[in-house]
Amino acid sequence: MHSPLAQELKNKGISLLLGSNSLRRHELMAMCGFTFQIVKPSYNEAILDQNRYSAKDYVLTQAENKAKSIKIPENSVLICADTVVVYQNTILEKPKDHNEAKAMILGQLSDSVHTVITGVCISQLGDYQSFIDETQVKFNALNEAEVDFYLENFDVLDRAGSYGIQEFIGLVGVQSIIGDYYNIMGLPINKVYQAIKQITLSK
Amino acid sequence: MHSPLAQELKNKGISLLLGSNSLRRHELMAMCGFTFQIVKPSYNEAILDQNRYSAKDYVLTQAENKAKSIKIPENSVLICADTVVVYQNTILEKPKDHNEAKAMILGQLSDSVHTVITGVCISQLGDYQSFIDETQVKFNALNEAEVDFYLENFDVLDRAGSYGIQEFIGLVGVQSIIGDYYNIMGLPINKVYQAIKQITLSK
Repeated sequence: MHSPLAQELKNKGISLLLGSNSLRRHELMAMCGFTFQIVKPSYNEAILDQNRYSAKDYVLTQAENKAKSIKIPENSVLICADTVVVYQNTILEKPKDHNEAKAMILGQLSDSVHTVITGVCISQLGDYQSFIDETQVKFNALNEAEVDFYLENFDVLDRAGSYGIQEFIGLVGVQSIIGDYYNIMGLPINKVYQAIKQITLSK
Repeated sequence: MHSPLAQELKNKGISLLLGSNSLRRHELMAMCGFTFQIVKPSYNEAILDQNRYSAKDYVLTQAENKAKSIKIPENSVLICADTVVVYQNTILEKPKDHNEAKAMILGQLSDSVHTVITGVCISQLGDYQSFIDETQVKFNALNEAEVDFYLENFDVLDRAGSYGIQEFIGLVGVQSIIGDYYNIMGLPINKVYQAIKQITLSK
């Protein structure tokens, strides 16, 4: 299923690279009808000290550092991204274990509002363009049985903020959002698509 | 995968009935961990004159009429729903054919904002409770090639407003939303879940 934009990329000899291991990101790019190659950043995300950055600068820096760790061939466009959940000015990242996930959901997400921020870096040989996208998410109160059920049935250890909007908890927990839904899944796909469109038109 | 609420329904001997043919609605109910039976309303939606109702009253009346056409056994809870897209005070329903769908997307959805409204009726023997949910959707400008590609690859004839948010066009077209994402798919699942929870607690 080649979308018209994917066809135009092909006509112009441009290849897409996605620098991410996230299956959700792979899926969202595929749903846009893109053909792309998955590449792995040789960058250790853990080295960046959260406390020295605002959430926005943090995800932008992470996305750019990932991009800069990958060798970009000529006529290729590389997409890298980093997503965090921000609750009361604190960055919630991936939980260490089941208990940390449970504490995060019941103590910080349940019955409150948080923001999901993704930094995206779209780069070509020697050129790095970055942007962020943010979505506000309002959770209703969840009880312990619901959270236990969720954590027993879904693996959240690779999820920033300990949840996936497209799973059980996103249906029974999320009252409303403001922004791009797919950003909560880890990639503001609409903005990414528009950016790739601009690059293709400019070639 | 029985959720805690599904288990409680079972303990109290309550059965769920879903009065809808929509596969998306079936899927959303299943994702909440509910077990339910699908029943078919013996009601012709086409008989209601749109022009005599506001959009909100229209979907409420449709949902209630569907519910009232189904015989509800004792200890059962029936869920019926009706979803429309509203653009500048006009209700956009399911398109008649490919051409009408294309005209609707390019002429009314592209580069503008619309609202998706669902009326839900949750009923038990002799008791009908209804509510609505609305979500605002902002589309960016789509070109003809993108819309043709979408319509060639997806069947929109059973989609109010000629599109599915969870498909190609929802990713490349939708900039942002305000409200419940799943309401755009046809069922405000969070509100439905909360309503079923209230009923279960009251038994």
